[in-house]
Amino acid sequence: MRALVIGAGGFVGQYLLRCLLDHGDSVIATTNTGTGGLGGYEAYDLDITDAQATTDLILKIRPDVVYHLAAIAFVPQAESDFQGTLAVNVAGTAHVARGCSLLGTKPAMLLVSSAEVYGHVKPSELPIREENPLRPANNYSLSKRMAELVVERYDRQGAIRSCIARPFNHIGPGQDPRFVASNFALQLARVALGLASPILEVGNLEARRDFSDVRDIVRAYRTLAVSQTGVFNLGSGRSFSIKELLDTLIDISGVKVEIRQDENRMRGPEVPDLFGSNDKASTLSSWNPTIPFRKSLEDVYRFWFDKLTAEKTSAAKAS
Amino acid sequence: MRALVIGAGGFVGQYLLRCLLDHGDSVIATTNTGTGGLGGYEAYDLDITDAQATTDLILKIRPDVVYHLAAIAFVPQAESDFQGTLAVNVAGTAHVARGCSLLGTKPAMLLVSSAEVYGHVKPSELPIREENPLRPANNYSLSKRMAELVVERYDRQGAIRSCIARPFNHIGPGQDPRFVASNFALQLARVALGLASPILEVGNLEARRDFSDVRDIVRAYRTLAVSQTGVFNLGSGRSFSIKELLDTLIDISGVKVEIRQDENRMRGPEVPDLFGSNDKASTLSSWNPTIPFRKSLEDVYRFWFDKLTAEKTSAAKAS
Repeated sequence: MRALVIGAGGFVGQYLLRCLLDHGDSVIATTNTGTGGLGGYEAYDLDITDAQATTDLILKIRPDVVYHLAAIAFVPQAESDFQGTLAVNVAGTAHVARGCSLLGTKPAMLLVSSAEVYGHVKPSELPIREENPLRPANNYSLSKRMAELVVERYDRQGAIRSCIARPFNHIGPGQDPRFVASNFALQLARVALGLASPILEVGNLEARRDFSDVRDIVRAYRTLAVSQTGVFNLGSGRSFSIKELLDTLIDISGVKVEIRQDENRMRGPEVPDLFGSNDKASTLSSWNPTIPFRKSLEDVYRFWFDKLTAEKTSAAKAS
Repeated sequence: MRALVIGAGGFVGQYLLRCLLDHGDSVIATTNTGTGGLGGYEAYDLDITDAQATTDLILKIRPDVVYHLAAIAFVPQAESDFQGTLAVNVAGTAHVARGCSLLGTKPAMLLVSSAEVYGHVKPSELPIREENPLRPANNYSLSKRMAELVVERYDRQGAIRSCIARPFNHIGPGQDPRFVASNFALQLARVALGLASPILEVGNLEARRDFSDVRDIVRAYRTLAVSQTGVFNLGSGRSFSIKELLDTLIDISGVKVEIRQDENRMRGPEVPDLFGSNDKASTLSSWNPTIPFRKSLEDVYRFWFDKLTAEKTSAAKAS
């Protein structure tokens, strides 16, 4: 199976590459920032806003499956630069879909969209199913819904066989510390190693979100891409409050900390509770999430603890 | 009523300006190509891809109603330059909607979308109602659906009171001769005036489309913008074949012509029949189309006949 991963340089991309290699796929990866470090695959630089370069690469690679992960995913950036976000997230997706359609082989294309396309969900609408109304509420989620429309166009034409994945929050070792689990784990590891005073800065702790492990999510991407078409929610099927996430991480770290609410971290209009049904994915494919919430958080914490320990050791050696 | 018309320079814009002035509105118009010739209104140059300029102008004008017509509307252009089309049709709409939302007065905003958002419609789905499935099938119709999503976002936030108009084909004097009625009328007027041999080049004559008069359509824009919210189809409620349109124009012109089918004019995958229900607009507002099909075509033909006659006369005088 020739698998092309577009946008392989990020957190999820690296896990997806590992998953595909483990399955014995012949893997080709693109990034726009130089290539990552796994090895065992062909790697290319690609700017997906370049229509010709994107089409040319796809026609050269002739993949059986394309995993399209490349996107501007940081909500404030999308809010301040919608035009640039549209260029990457929407026109970029169109360039990928068009390249796939030109192959003439009806390849599979998996678009990584987002559960954010559901927008502000009322408590009565939980758990979120794929048929729920779509009410994208910011430029990022708008751009994701627009990318879905693009993929649906080429699928209806019979030019590609598409899957649209709508993942809920996912966590895992190596995630950017702008995201909550990684952020808290990093702060706690710093405290545990004596690198920071035992004060934890937090935002809104009441919100409840559907957290999955990134390793479960990328496994779903492969399972769906090679066997299904249509739209699929990907989540754990339940929600945890940020408070529960924090308490679990504190318990894992074994440190005592003072919790301090930081006004700057209190996000704007929040949906109090958000979780999806993954019935469709689990019924139609063999996929189910397998990694427990606590295990994911242990690994996230361990990642930062080990990284900071290594940095500390090398700093001590250098001095 | 302070009415701001964005994208007033085109065919529809000029008719809308006339309609608003006839209603006694205080009219402010923007174009990106210098301003049109009606007079009686304030006029500004505006490039809606410039977020700051768009916001600044709206905050300066403080309109009660914004009519947003500015768009790339030529299908082949959208197909070849999706990124540029997104910048104008989607980011541009976002800049207008955001400007309106910043006023704090919850102004009315009418977005001129398109019945093309329904895409390939099955015969069993006619007449098209606002609840019909949306299957945009090209970059132009995708961009229009995306603009709708943007407007719906700001409406849901309570920042604007929005109307989304989905007009079907409209015709009228002065329309670009790339459009079918204007094209045939121009060709026939040339024959009638001895400027061309009596051969008419045509494309697919079987397709049936829902043609309205542009003067009916702009009247609907005003009626809906000042009194309604939501999505509205705007059409005649029935379809005519291109053959019927051609036969009517030939009858009006009184000339005898040979019909020649031009392969270059046969558009790609066509929907055989397309017409919308305008029940929602006519039930909720006082609007109904009033100008008969034949009357519209008479005026379209007269426009070209008079224009070519004037050109011929001035050319004769000059020689």
